[in-house]
Formats: sequence, structure tokens, C-alpha cells
Amino acid sequence: MSGTELITGIGELTTHDESGERRHDAALVIGDGRILWIGAASQAPAADRRTDVDGRAVLPGWVDSHTHLVFGGDRSAEFEARMAGQKYAAGGINTTVAATRAASEEQLVATALGLRHEAETQGTTFLETKTGYGLDVDSEARSARAAARVADVVSYLGAHIVPTGLDRRDYLDLVTGPMLAAVLPYVQFIDAFCEQGAFDVEETREVLLAGRAAGLGLRVHGNQLGFTGGVRLAAELGAHSVDHCNYLEPSDIDALAASATVATLLPACDLSTRQPFPPARQLFDAGVTIALATNCNPGTSYTTSMPFCVATAVLQMGLTVTEAVWAATRGAAASLGHDQGTDAVGSLRVGGLADLQVLNAPSISHLAYRPGVPLTANVWRRGVRVA
Amino acid sequence: MSGTELITGIGELTTHDESGERRHDAALVIGDGRILWIGAASQAPAADRRTDVDGRAVLPGWVDSHTHLVFGGDRSAEFEARMAGQKYAAGGINTTVAATRAASEEQLVATALGLRHEAETQGTTFLETKTGYGLDVDSEARSARAAARVADVVSYLGAHIVPTGLDRRDYLDLVTGPMLAAVLPYVQFIDAFCEQGAFDVEETREVLLAGRAAGLGLRVHGNQLGFTGGVRLAAELGAHSVDHCNYLEPSDIDALAASATVATLLPACDLSTRQPFPPARQLFDAGVTIALATNCNPGTSYTTSMPFCVATAVLQMGLTVTEAVWAATRGAAASLGHDQGTDAVGSLRVGGLADLQVLNAPSISHLAYRPGVPLTANVWRRGVRVA
Ligand SMILES: [Zn+2]
Ligand SMILES: [Zn+2]
Repeated sequence: MSGTELITGIGELTTHDESGERRHDAALVIGDGRILWIGAASQAPAADRRTDVDGRAVLPGWVDSHTHLVFGGDRSAEFEARMAGQKYAAGGINTTVAATRAASEEQLVATALGLRHEAETQGTTFLETKTGYGLDVDSEARSARAAARVADVVSYLGAHIVPTGLDRRDYLDLVTGPMLAAVLPYVQFIDAFCEQGAFDVEETREVLLAGRAAGLGLRVHGNQLGFTGGVRLAAELGAHSVDHCNYLEPSDIDALAASATVATLLPACDLSTRQPFPPARQLFDAGVTIALATNCNPGTSYTTSMPFCVATAVLQMGLTVTEAVWAATRGAAASLGHDQGTDAVGSLRVGGLADLQVLNAPSISHLAYRPGVPLTANVWRRGVRVA
Repeated sequence: MSGTELITGIGELTTHDESGERRHDAALVIGDGRILWIGAASQAPAADRRTDVDGRAVLPGWVDSHTHLVFGGDRSAEFEARMAGQKYAAGGINTTVAATRAASEEQLVATALGLRHEAETQGTTFLETKTGYGLDVDSEARSARAAARVADVVSYLGAHIVPTGLDRRDYLDLVTGPMLAAVLPYVQFIDAFCEQGAFDVEETREVLLAGRAAGLGLRVHGNQLGFTGGVRLAAELGAHSVDHCNYLEPSDIDALAASATVATLLPACDLSTRQPFPPARQLFDAGVTIALATNCNPGTSYTTSMPFCVATAVLQMGLTVTEAVWAATRGAAASLGHDQGTDAVGSLRVGGLADLQVLNAPSISHLAYRPGVPLTANVWRRGVRVA
């Protein structure tokens, strides 16, 4: 449907513009996929259509900046075993690698699109996803193509683990050589899992620098299971984001605060692996930019629910509602380099993209006040109603 | 719609019958609001209609055995203040009391029915609710009538707090005298908030015994904010349920294990008030019957989501998926005295009520494996599709 649409009756508008306020008198007009006007409802211009949201809260669509949607198979049995007391080990990734290699590109796309649709019905309008369950040249290339058909931003995670049976050195040469070349047309970031059982700091550095030399932005999975040095490396290299951040020494927080690197927190993964939450409050108070994301993947965090992540961040990680919603929208956009310019996401501004959602609630506070209740009422992506 | 309905294509059937197994080959037939047949799909009898659930999991509808749906007003501002660091105090109840007294019975019913409907869309098919925000004879009677129009089971919670300005002794005489008489036609249980700032053990005992003398079953809000003795009193008096149970000494667990009293755990409330979780694993291992419920109320747990409670119990309280689902269905039914006989709820048996739900998932494990994702596909209550 084309033409302009006036959205009125807004009980509370969160824009994440420079003022940071939640407005109670606002309306907005969208058209051609963009926001054409934001202002006091009493001064709203005429539009072709009018949608009255009856006192509900309006905010930017969620930006899910860390997912692994391209996979085959299922790991619910492993999950149940972990809940019955078995510890999480990175080796479980091999299960998904085998199933992903066995899947066709169409199967991979179908699964990932199903999850993207599920995310959209919960308010997600912009989404990153990764390779990392292929781990040979053909399977990573197939995964990258599939990812590019599904996600807004794609990261290359050849350095997820060293596949069973391969020599580390040989595999690193593959990751930084032919595999990188094969995925390059489809990806914007390079990512690496810097963790015991995966890659150490120097290996991670080698991978990231190869990606940078090929023109990619940098992301790191860091300090999830211990004090691995991944966070400091990310800050040192000026990575866009370092994700997980469960185990942080004071010097890690200082390094992040002195850098432009975003700390991406993944509360659903922490719950699903029974890890301690990262020190979100300390990070925020130190001036670190925080993002919240689902880490949706079949092994350690099989959820697409950004509302669940926001509720958990408020109820259990000490963020205020405003901070958590900011982290799940504009903070996540910053971690993807998509928070500035005319195609910025995670905020609502005149001239910007019309990616927004309406809650079945008068305020964003209900996202944490009413945990678990499906509160997504409507979602517009590029001005088009998708939920 | 009348006639019989065959439900087939069930990926996993959880009945909570004596075997306790999850079956993978089953089908069931419902008709006249009851379950007419359960057996192997290959032997299913003919029926008037057939619903294929395409590999999804089928289980009993949730039994939410602890809610406070009859209230006026909203306490989101208090919630945001608490999340920004302010501690929960029972006194906040007065805010809701004022708004409830100001509301008409029709307003109270409309709010409560809206929440019941919201719960139903998440799989809840049987629900208890309470008075306790009226706290004068007329307002408690109005609340009880409203509750009886909305809920399957109603508890009288005149002993929620002593309303501002009233003498304790005078108020106890009211609660055990004229107020009890006024609500009696509408309620099945008496309940009391045994807590610092509310009622002590001896006051609670007096209230409960007055209810018992009037023919009511007993419930207690106990040991939520400290070691109050409420749990031991509940066990001593043979209450159906003692709810919260956050602070338990070993002797409390022993007392519960030696009694028929159900320990009702309220994880969403614990998160929303930032209380430590109750020792669910220890209770279960000691042989105590556990129920899970939402405690839906505007002050300390404003959620209707039983799936959220189940996910939290598994991810954070150490219950297995099977145990948590049992607690949220048959355990909760036991706490309401509704787990036996032809009108039992919380289990699926031939001749029993057709209160059941289908998940958008192949197994109940996904309730915790996929936290926050709305997984309720279909809900039947008394054989009628309500979601
Ligand atoms: Zn990841
Ligand atoms: Zn209660």
C-alpha cells in the first residue's frame, strides 16, 4: 500500500533521538518506507490513511544484532540434558555443523526465514546473522548466501570452532584464505569465537586482521566462559562489537570504555547455559555502549524474542527499562554500524526508515512489568505492516 | 460445535496420567467437553471431525492457581521505581485498594476478564483468583462476586493487609466476621498474607480457622520476604497450599514433606520483586508437591504467562522441563483440590475434562528451550476452541 499514513493516538512515543525523552503528545506520518513527520498530535498534517493506536506505546523496531539463524537440525535433547545438570561445552557445535552440511541452501533459507518471521512478529525489524555451522569452504559459502537472503547484515564466522579432525594451523589458513574469499561477496563483518575450546587471542587476531584486510568490519565472541582476553582484543582492534562479556576484569571494562566497541549482551544465552550475567550496570555506568541481542541459535539460546531479552535485562541485570530498550534498538544498531545516516535503524527520526512497532501496552515499562506476555501489537518495516 | 473431534498428528502427548510418560504415538478424541478416548494413533476410532496438529506437542491446559485479577488501577510507575533501585514493600497494596474501591463491579469484571482472556491465549484453562484489594465489607463482597464471574476457583483474602487507619483487632474481627459472611456465597478458599507488614502467625491462624469453620479450604501467602512461620502454620493446619516459600529453613521443608500441603512457587513475582528464588529443587527432592503459578497482580507480578513461569522454573530454579510442566498443571490442580475425580484438571484422562493445549513446537522441552517465544498454538477449554 502506498501513500502516507498518520499514526495517532500514541500513548507514549520512544524515538531515541537526541532528547532521549518518551513523548506523550506525539503523532507521526510515514510514507515511501520512511518517517515523514514527527510532532505534536494536535499539529499533525493530513495523510492518506490514519491509524489510531488507542493509547498504546510506539517505539523503534528491535535490532537483533547477534543471531545464528543458518543451521540444520535441532539440539533440544542436548538442552534437556543441560537443564538436568550437564555443563555447556562448545563441542556441541559439531552436532549442528554435521546437520548444516547435510542441508541444502533452500532448507537453510527456509529455516532461517521461519525464524526471521517469528522474530518479526515480536517486533524485530533489522537483524544480523552469521555463518559458522558450515566450517568447510562450500558449506560456509552456502551458509553465507543463505544468510544474505534472510538477514540485513551478515557476519562470517568460519572461526567458530576447529572442525573435528582438522589441524588447527591448516584450518586457520582455510578460514583466512579460500573460505574468506568464498564468503566475501555475501558478508559485511568477520567474527570469531575467542574461547577455550575455540580460538585463543592470537588466533582470533589473525582471523580478524585477515577480515579487515578484505574490507570487513570486526566482531568478536569474547569472555563468555572465562577471562579469555577477547574483550581486550576487540577494544584494541576497534571492533564494532564484542559479544557475551560474562567475565570481565576491571581492565576489560576500562578498555571498552576507552574504545568505540559496543558490548553486546545476550541474556537469553546466559540463562540457557546457566552462566552468570555480565555486569551490565557497571558497563553502562562506565560509559560503555551496550547492545542487547538474542544470540538465536539451536545450541545455547534458541529464542527470537527481543522482548524476553529486554525483560531479563531489566529484571535481572540492573538496567532501567529505558536503558534496556535503547540497548535493544539504537545500541544494537551502533554495534552494526547502522545507527547513523539516512538508513539508520534503531531510532525514529524524520527522513529515517519507518521501522517501528506498537505495543499492547501504554508504556515501554510494560515490557518488563509484564514479562512473558506477548505485547507486540503491530510492526511496520520500511513502512509496510509485517505484523 | 458439537460432535466428536479426533486430534491426531500429535508429536508428543503429555497426559500426566499415572505413567508420567510423554507418548509419541498417541491420538485423542474429545466430545461433549470431555476426553472420550486416548490411544495409539493407528487405532483411533472414527470421529465427526479431525484436527491434525502436524507433529506438535499436546499437553493439559495450564492451571494458574494463584492470581489477583480483581483490582482497579495500575502500578507501572511503582514498578519502574523498583527497577531503578527502590525495595518492594507490602504497603504498595494500599494504592490498589484505593483504586479497587473506586471501581464498579462491571469495571472489575472487565479488567479481570481481559486478563483471563490474555491467559487463555497462552494456554491457561483453569484459574484461581482472589479478593484482597477491597478490604471493607462492601468492596470485598463486590470483589468476590466479580471474581466468581471470572475465575474457576475464588479465594477470600480479606487478610491481605490491615487497611490504613484501621485498628488491627477491629479489622481482624471484620475479616473473620461480617466480611467473611458477605463473601461466603462466592468463595471456596480463605487465604491470608502471613508476612511482616501484613499478619503474623497467630493472626493468620485466627483468620484461617474462621474460614475453616465456615467450610472453606485454606491457603496461605507464606515466607515471601522472610522466615515468617507461615509455611509451618500451613502444614500444621493442613492447608491446600502455601504460596511464595522464598525463605525456607530445613524444618519448613520437613514440615511440608510430612503434610499434604502444596508449595506454590511464583517465579515471575520473585523476578519482579528481585527476591531470591525458592529452593525448588530441594522441595521437589524432599517429596513436596510443587505448583507453579503467575501470582498475576498489578503490584508485584503483572503477568498472565504460565509459559514464562515454566521457562523460569527450568532455566533458573533447577526443575526439569517435565517437573515444571507437571507443577504448572497437575501440581497446581492439586493445590486447588481439583486433581481428582471426573472434573479434575491438569491432566488428560479418558472421561476427564477436555482442557488442553497445542504448542507450536514438537516437545514441551521447547517451553524452556525457546524462552519468550509465544508457543501457544491452540487451546481447548471443555472441548471448545478458545485460542
Ligand atoms: Zn554467537
Ligand atoms: Zn498473592
